[in-house]
Amino acid sequence: MKEIADKIAPYIHQTPVLTSDSLNGLFGCHVFFKCENFQKTGSFKIRGASHAILSLSPEQRSKGVVTHSSGNFAQALAKAASLLGIEAYIVMPDNAPMVKVDAVHDFGATIIRCKPTIKAREEAAKKLEAETGATFVHPSNQLTVIQGQGTSAYELLEEYPEIKVIFVPVGGGGLIGGTVLAAKRKNEQILVFGGEPKAADDAYRSLQSGKIESNITTDTIADGLRTQLGEYNFPIILNHVEEIYTVSEVEIVAAMKLIWERLKIVIEPSSAAAVAALWQQKSNFNGQNVGIILSGGNVDLEKLPF
Amino acid sequence: MKEIADKIAPYIHQTPVLTSDSLNGLFGCHVFFKCENFQKTGSFKIRGASHAILSLSPEQRSKGVVTHSSGNFAQALAKAASLLGIEAYIVMPDNAPMVKVDAVHDFGATIIRCKPTIKAREEAAKKLEAETGATFVHPSNQLTVIQGQGTSAYELLEEYPEIKVIFVPVGGGGLIGGTVLAAKRKNEQILVFGGEPKAADDAYRSLQSGKIESNITTDTIADGLRTQLGEYNFPIILNHVEEIYTVSEVEIVAAMKLIWERLKIVIEPSSAAAVAALWQQKSNFNGQNVGIILSGGNVDLEKLPF
Repeated sequence: MKEIADKIAPYIHQTPVLTSDSLNGLFGCHVFFKCENFQKTGSFKIRGASHAILSLSPEQRSKGVVTHSSGNFAQALAKAASLLGIEAYIVMPDNAPMVKVDAVHDFGATIIRCKPTIKAREEAAKKLEAETGATFVHPSNQLTVIQGQGTSAYELLEEYPEIKVIFVPVGGGGLIGGTVLAAKRKNEQILVFGGEPKAADDAYRSLQSGKIESNITTDTIADGLRTQLGEYNFPIILNHVEEIYTVSEVEIVAAMKLIWERLKIVIEPSSAAAVAALWQQKSNFNGQNVGIILSGGNVDLEKLPF
Repeated sequence: MKEIADKIAPYIHQTPVLTSDSLNGLFGCHVFFKCENFQKTGSFKIRGASHAILSLSPEQRSKGVVTHSSGNFAQALAKAASLLGIEAYIVMPDNAPMVKVDAVHDFGATIIRCKPTIKAREEAAKKLEAETGATFVHPSNQLTVIQGQGTSAYELLEEYPEIKVIFVPVGGGGLIGGTVLAAKRKNEQILVFGGEPKAADDAYRSLQSGKIESNITTDTIADGLRTQLGEYNFPIILNHVEEIYTVSEVEIVAAMKLIWERLKIVIEPSSAAAVAALWQQKSNFNGQNVGIILSGGNVDLEKLPF
């Protein structure tokens, strides 16, 4: 993991880790908050995006990259491509927030709009691959992306080797997959737990059933966690993640507010799912050193839940 | 100033300094944000409070300290007194937010409620001084407090000696007074500017007239800046501060939102007044290295202006 971290280092921020006496008191353990909300483009996703691009051959790079995303990965891939001087083609659904479309545009990417369905997004991306020769990069279900996302936990554990438990939000599985790879490589004894919205609990059910389950609803404020696991990250998660805890919308909002009030930082609801999971389960982690990956800080201030 | 910074160091956080490429682009200069919103009790005020207590004789300390405040200084003095193991008596008006009253209580201070007028607050404090022998500590108009507040700028300039301009919000004058003392001691060439709400522009007018002016209205969202200068900090400000810029409520809210969105941190409206002042005047600071003291992050998330 050191090699990957070194490789992407010029293109990302080494994010700070915050602690709070008052939150330690509340949770009954020592919590180390890894602030990916301060990361370039406001989320951890540029770690995987830049690693994916750096893993391409010069020939591939010359033809650019393509993805479909309405959210943080669109910005991350556009920014990483811009930093690395290659073309990025981003398929964005018609209902993507204008602020995110504008950000992707500002990074110099070519944007292709489509209907807001998975089918339309995938078809548009396929068409672009065929037309341009660009390489498709998946937001979460691709080994180079998963490895890149793991560098956040790698940095955290290098700085605080006393951490023996890590909480991560679970969406498409890229972050938790990478985190568990980094953690187990550092020390087999480190336990990784996921926090997932009850309203989009595909990963929780996938660990129960042993196969990839889909979300029945995605009606959660944690907009980054509405996606589902994929065939590359699922086996990693199934074999190495300790447990996934589901949290209610009320718990997510309360955890988000708690972090804003006590740490004085802006985190998005997806990040709060991991905090909510520790809060809910705190009696099981009494006195331990616990890391939490605060995955991002992209939130619409005009539409806050409090 | 080093001596004072060393003296209070065990009781405060050395706060981090954040920077942002995108904000540098927007402002056309290199901005260094000194994050007192991450300070203990959520604002810079514990710097002055702890220095004031540390400047007392053992005899004085044994009898405790008293102040009147509805806001950040109440919490700061209560916390500093608790850390230093002495009594604190805090006069708080009936209309002080319950959350702040609770915080002061949690730090172990004795709270005395009074009517929400300056007269009632001063009388209650006087009475307590007489009854308990406790020493009165003023939130902003007292040399030991002013000196303590200056340690934020001292830390900033030690870390980034290339800074030649500092922006600070102006309320009671303690922070800008201390900042200019620290700046000029470091280097006479460093220029200090204030940002003040148009709706509470006593300091702006005081610099014009050469005498301490009162606020005619205090109808500003920047609740920490509704107070006025005093006889100890005014001469320092009059002689050494370069200029005070007044900013509208719209400018304050826009600057607050900008910092939340780009730096992903929570600052209170008072801090945003300094950011708004630089934003308004940016054409005068093109290409320069500019420090801004983000004074605090205590904001009611249920009552946001956006």
